[in-house]
Amino acid sequence: MAVDSLRVISDLQELRSLTADTGGAQRIAWSPMWLKSRNWFRHKLEEFPVEHHYDAAGNSWTTLRGDSDRALVLGSHLDSVPNGGWLDGCLGVLAGLEVLRGFAEEFHGRPPITIRLVDWADEEGARFGRSLFGSSAFAGTQTIEADRKRVDRDGVRLEDALHECWVDVERVGDAAAEQRNAGAYLELHIEQGPVLETMGLPLGVVLGTKGVERHAIVFHGQEAHSGSTPMGARRDALAAAAKLALEIRAIARKHADAVATMGSVKTFPGIVTAVVGRCETTLDMRDLEAGVLESMFVEAKAASERFAAEEGCTVAWTKIWSIEPIPFHSHLIALCDEAIRETAGTSHKLPSGPLHDAAEVARANIPTVMMFVQSLNGLSHNKAEDTRVQDLKLAVEGFDRLARKTAKWLMTEMAAG
Amino acid sequence: MAVDSLRVISDLQELRSLTADTGGAQRIAWSPMWLKSRNWFRHKLEEFPVEHHYDAAGNSWTTLRGDSDRALVLGSHLDSVPNGGWLDGCLGVLAGLEVLRGFAEEFHGRPPITIRLVDWADEEGARFGRSLFGSSAFAGTQTIEADRKRVDRDGVRLEDALHECWVDVERVGDAAAEQRNAGAYLELHIEQGPVLETMGLPLGVVLGTKGVERHAIVFHGQEAHSGSTPMGARRDALAAAAKLALEIRAIARKHADAVATMGSVKTFPGIVTAVVGRCETTLDMRDLEAGVLESMFVEAKAASERFAAEEGCTVAWTKIWSIEPIPFHSHLIALCDEAIRETAGTSHKLPSGPLHDAAEVARANIPTVMMFVQSLNGLSHNKAEDTRVQDLKLAVEGFDRLARKTAKWLMTEMAAG
Repeated sequence: MAVDSLRVISDLQELRSLTADTGGAQRIAWSPMWLKSRNWFRHKLEEFPVEHHYDAAGNSWTTLRGDSDRALVLGSHLDSVPNGGWLDGCLGVLAGLEVLRGFAEEFHGRPPITIRLVDWADEEGARFGRSLFGSSAFAGTQTIEADRKRVDRDGVRLEDALHECWVDVERVGDAAAEQRNAGAYLELHIEQGPVLETMGLPLGVVLGTKGVERHAIVFHGQEAHSGSTPMGARRDALAAAAKLALEIRAIARKHADAVATMGSVKTFPGIVTAVVGRCETTLDMRDLEAGVLESMFVEAKAASERFAAEEGCTVAWTKIWSIEPIPFHSHLIALCDEAIRETAGTSHKLPSGPLHDAAEVARANIPTVMMFVQSLNGLSHNKAEDTRVQDLKLAVEGFDRLARKTAKWLMTEMAAG
Repeated sequence: MAVDSLRVISDLQELRSLTADTGGAQRIAWSPMWLKSRNWFRHKLEEFPVEHHYDAAGNSWTTLRGDSDRALVLGSHLDSVPNGGWLDGCLGVLAGLEVLRGFAEEFHGRPPITIRLVDWADEEGARFGRSLFGSSAFAGTQTIEADRKRVDRDGVRLEDALHECWVDVERVGDAAAEQRNAGAYLELHIEQGPVLETMGLPLGVVLGTKGVERHAIVFHGQEAHSGSTPMGARRDALAAAAKLALEIRAIARKHADAVATMGSVKTFPGIVTAVVGRCETTLDMRDLEAGVLESMFVEAKAASERFAAEEGCTVAWTKIWSIEPIPFHSHLIALCDEAIRETAGTSHKLPSGPLHDAAEVARANIPTVMMFVQSLNGLSHNKAEDTRVQDLKLAVEGFDRLARKTAKWLMTEMAAG
């Protein structure tokens, strides 16, 4: 096999040494460190017979032209959260580069179909709070009219930060032109969760990305003195919120893969000597089935109203964000499962809780699948993020097998069509 | 009856017009507005045959000398929290002044025993976080060695703020000299809770101040991605805290007058997309029975450990502060009950959840009792704090009755002794 998985690991280590500090990776999109990582990547391309360009949304496209314009697209992202890990995003880009190298070598620079590698711009949304920026522009689902007013914590406008990186907000929609000839999209990523580690498996097939319902829920009761207000005379907003914090777990557990999280609770006045008059919470619910997600939302809302009434409080819901579940392509799921079994002996299919650029590509009706590699301790977005070297090697090999199977499928499809 | 309750209300209104803004009362201890209120009070004394001095802790003493040095002490405080109400503290001082006037008039400036009125310095502790400052100095329970390092939110040291008000921190303990000849202490205060209003009663006898157990409780779990971490793999610190928030209510409800409050909850990282890894809470428990308070503490601690274990978390308790229950004097309770029944027809005995200067006086083994007047909606420490005019009138009349009964008792005691 032409693929050299150790070279991928050595590239990842080189990138870490260039773009991380003692706190972790610092490749925040639209920052000088991010531009540095992209320049480093471009230098890596010098030995390859490829073309390179940035599209209108700042996505970085590397193209190995084939006999056919029909393209197999591999992708991920080089950007990181602040104090991020050494694998999130960049593993997929550098594994993709190694797969592309394999095609270039085997076919002497001219494979039967075109192979493209994309480094999506601003997957994390760490600076402006808008994740999947580049891939949504590609998919035609960008929301630049709503996003252009965003500012970072220093008050810098999104528009100006993009301009510094040669991206014109007026033109980001033009990135959709890159969809042309895309026959399939593959993405390798660390799991960022504990499922594969718990099962003792190195690799898994991703069934799709879960839909998300994300809401701000505020309970209003009555602030009161903790010493002078009898228990029976209280309208305690925290009590209503605490009931909901526990109930959402029961609601999620009715469904195999569903999750529900109260991630933030704020109490007002929030002092030791006062009954909580106002309690602000957030709720994040996810599932791969739209029907399940909808029923969870309905149940949680009804429960919150019941708890508010029990505690003499009122409750108000405000939607923060939502997205539908995005299932991946059934034939590519089968190919990925096959590639994993051939590489690691055993495979496992699981949904992805976190969103990924692959979800946006799938929304553009391009056949898509992702492969997950085990994360240690389920940690990510943290410098402690890690994966065993032997699992990283299996991941590169498995991803290469998937790419070759997918390329064959695209050629068969072309022959049939 | 010599007492003019309408004059008290008119004095309260005058004080409000001088020391409140649109946010409420601003008589924060050791501030220019507080000094202004105290100067206003001293001008009120000009028509009285009294002596006045400030003691070493800044307590303001007005003395109507009697045939005997044996003294009946009336007291409360002029200081307020920021954005405070028009009654908390100053009602007791101005009602006391009216009672003192009654004694002065009836006995032509020379009652059989001495009548003293004290305006305690810094009851609220609003600026430096040390409440009952002046009364604890009087009682000999001051903690100036621990308190002298306190700073306000602008970084001003307690020591320097006191110096601005002619109080030397080295000498605050000398205020204990004021205990000499004190035969009894009486304090009128608004209830600051809903008990009397719920019962439809204007006045109540205070049995004592509840003991307080105040703790910081921190649950440690594991921060995790809300999308990628299955429900069964979580160590959710918020879930453990939510269970405790609900359980403390059941613990308190086993006892008639006990209260337990979780007033503050902080979640870390506290973002919508992360399972809570650390949850910081506060717990405030109060009861008039030391045994009840101790058993509540033991039960709450055991419950927190059980919930932490259930959620795969750990829990740590740190005591913020505690004080034992302080029961008032049984004979003075009987006299207060009698005075209220004669004034309002019906009386009710209740413990005080909030602490008061009277608790410090009682700790100095001076026979002490308090009278409560109904608060509307249980509100206090807020500009919406209010009490019906007819109830304020009954309060001044009832407090005057209590003072006269207590003076008689002191004379009987002297005759017997």
